[in-house]
Amino acid sequence: MPKEGNCVVAQSGGPTAVINASLLGVIEEAMKQHPIRAIYGAKNGIIGLIDEELYDLRMEDPEELKLLKTTPSSALGSCRYQLKPFEHDEKDYIKIFNVFEAHNIRYFFYIGGNDSMDTADKLTRYAQKIGYDICIIGIPKTIDNDLVMTDHCPGFGSAAKYIATSVMEIARDAVVYPTNIVTIIEVMGRNAGWLAAASALASKDIGAPDLIYLPEVPFSIEKFLDDVRNIHKKTGKITIVVSEGIKDREGKYIADMSHKFGIDAFGHVQLGGAAFVLENIIREEVEKRVKSIQFNVLQRSAAHIMSKTDVEEAYMVGRMAVRYAVEGACGYMVAIKRDSDNPYSSSTELVELNKVANAEKLVPLAWISHDGNYVKEDALNYIQPLIEGEVEVKYEKGLPRYAKLRKIMVPKKVV
Amino acid sequence: MPKEGNCVVAQSGGPTAVINASLLGVIEEAMKQHPIRAIYGAKNGIIGLIDEELYDLRMEDPEELKLLKTTPSSALGSCRYQLKPFEHDEKDYIKIFNVFEAHNIRYFFYIGGNDSMDTADKLTRYAQKIGYDICIIGIPKTIDNDLVMTDHCPGFGSAAKYIATSVMEIARDAVVYPTNIVTIIEVMGRNAGWLAAASALASKDIGAPDLIYLPEVPFSIEKFLDDVRNIHKKTGKITIVVSEGIKDREGKYIADMSHKFGIDAFGHVQLGGAAFVLENIIREEVEKRVKSIQFNVLQRSAAHIMSKTDVEEAYMVGRMAVRYAVEGACGYMVAIKRDSDNPYSSSTELVELNKVANAEKLVPLAWISHDGNYVKEDALNYIQPLIEGEVEVKYEKGLPRYAKLRKIMVPKKVV
Repeated sequence: MPKEGNCVVAQSGGPTAVINASLLGVIEEAMKQHPIRAIYGAKNGIIGLIDEELYDLRMEDPEELKLLKTTPSSALGSCRYQLKPFEHDEKDYIKIFNVFEAHNIRYFFYIGGNDSMDTADKLTRYAQKIGYDICIIGIPKTIDNDLVMTDHCPGFGSAAKYIATSVMEIARDAVVYPTNIVTIIEVMGRNAGWLAAASALASKDIGAPDLIYLPEVPFSIEKFLDDVRNIHKKTGKITIVVSEGIKDREGKYIADMSHKFGIDAFGHVQLGGAAFVLENIIREEVEKRVKSIQFNVLQRSAAHIMSKTDVEEAYMVGRMAVRYAVEGACGYMVAIKRDSDNPYSSSTELVELNKVANAEKLVPLAWISHDGNYVKEDALNYIQPLIEGEVEVKYEKGLPRYAKLRKIMVPKKVV
Repeated sequence: MPKEGNCVVAQSGGPTAVINASLLGVIEEAMKQHPIRAIYGAKNGIIGLIDEELYDLRMEDPEELKLLKTTPSSALGSCRYQLKPFEHDEKDYIKIFNVFEAHNIRYFFYIGGNDSMDTADKLTRYAQKIGYDICIIGIPKTIDNDLVMTDHCPGFGSAAKYIATSVMEIARDAVVYPTNIVTIIEVMGRNAGWLAAASALASKDIGAPDLIYLPEVPFSIEKFLDDVRNIHKKTGKITIVVSEGIKDREGKYIADMSHKFGIDAFGHVQLGGAAFVLENIIREEVEKRVKSIQFNVLQRSAAHIMSKTDVEEAYMVGRMAVRYAVEGACGYMVAIKRDSDNPYSSSTELVELNKVANAEKLVPLAWISHDGNYVKEDALNYIQPLIEGEVEVKYEKGLPRYAKLRKIMVPKKVV
């Protein structure tokens, strides 16, 4: 017998272009599942549960909700709040379960990365401990693509598409003058270089990028200079992509060397990341005309150029989370299984939350070139289908029309 | 009687998303006009004429040429080369007219900004002086929208659309956490604030940006801090757009104050622009969580989100340049005339090159808010139609398919 009661959905961690597609999947499927009554959204992830700040999502205009499928960023708000182990500190857990009980919450869907899966796992175990009947399901989300136990993560494909497209456009811009130029593009990824790897897809356009550096391979400035000098001899126009997280053999982030290049007048100026450091090294050692570009938050929020595969999969994991839950699954994350490469097809499966929490999937070293400055065909074959398909974004007066929710608060009963 | 002979088209100055749409307009119209025989493209603008580096554009695959309409950056290459007045130095002119004569060039179309119109004007006057029969027409191009005598410039609408869309996406990303955050976005524009003004179109989404600063109004750091503090009191999340060219009452660029915030270890590190300087001031004075974002070359080359109005007008000015030339007009720039606002429609007219060269159209002060920190409805009404319409970009395997020209060189006869 499926549990009867209300559900809450929440979003956590850094936004992506498709995290709201997963949210829509949860809402639309929850509306179809009769055991589920009220559908609440927690404001700012787990913090909304602690503070009993819940939106009544059934009060939203269904047409506006549909726009969530192509709306970037976390519509419900997000957080980076980590629950302490309940064995040490039960305070937050007591608050959350008081809210669960007061609102008869029997389903909780948490869209997030590995920290969020850890949170979902802790709440599942705490519910078992106190004997509260609730079904908690994790829904994967991250542009970094670093969750284990899933072929890939919703959010990655769209970020990869944005990065490859933008690298194409920047490289075409860089070559127009007769002068030499080195362009260094920094993409996100502290430990996993998936996004940097995705930039290699751009190379089918006009051959850029020339060099790609991932955090998986220790970064040597000497080797980097050799790589750049070698290409500089042949062509004066070089495009380089680096992960923000590249570090040297001792594990020291290259980005942290920025103090060498700009001394902060106040004591805590952030001068920029890895690309900024490398820009200054190149300017000194190889080529005066050099610039660095950071894609910043655009790579995770540029919904105007999403991957259709990514949007549909994000929507699918949201819907499937609800179905699995109603069928009685509890304490799992909905993972994506790649069923076929050509034509590409995927489905979902359940993996245990605690196997995902706190683990990290890196780019296999076998997929990185021997020289450590590019990725191999295997990496491209893996990423290629994830960026495919274009999404029809709704435009109004020349600009994307993104969802505007009413966000009607549920009256508080506890806090 | 129309002149019979060959034509050359060239591109100059910074790229735009639609400069190749103008190039396509020239090529396609030249193919239809019987007096025009060979159609050459000069490599890297006027430099290609000096060095006699010409591509034979009739050798290109017509299907590939069609892709130019949605291909960013200058397909023929560009330059920032300025001709000296021929009264002082005839060297370059002699080379160029030798090339013109050797290849029987009777039409020259120059796509560029005000420097390029100056070049076209000088060549026109030199042709008259030496009695060489050639028709030279300027085709406007600039994302800065700062050419006079034309309602607006091809390139601006697409850059404006990119900026407004990206500001929407960044602002949505910035508000997801419960914490305060100030985001400062720097857009291009050394003297004219049109691109910064365009960001106000984003405000219809979720109210961002909160503040906009243009180079037209002297920038006061004290006033800026007051503006930010006022909003910070009400809401902790602030989005600010600044032109790269904002300067103080003495005309000193705010960007040039960056040395105050980072001392260069080598002597010539460029620490970033105006947004970087303001980021550090805000961090000290108002809010620790602050970041700056530069759109860099993406704002001029993101063809994946072009304005259809802009593309069609860029194509139109290219075609009309050829028609006007064959009809005998010479020494003019093809300007855009706004015929109607609602529904928007435009046509072309001819303006004298020397009236455009070396002049600059700024945002009227009457269109900037009294406080100097936003733009008024008049500015939005002017910009709105220019970003409208979406272009169907061709995608292949998930990425835009941009034109790849064969670039067959014409055998040299002179150099």
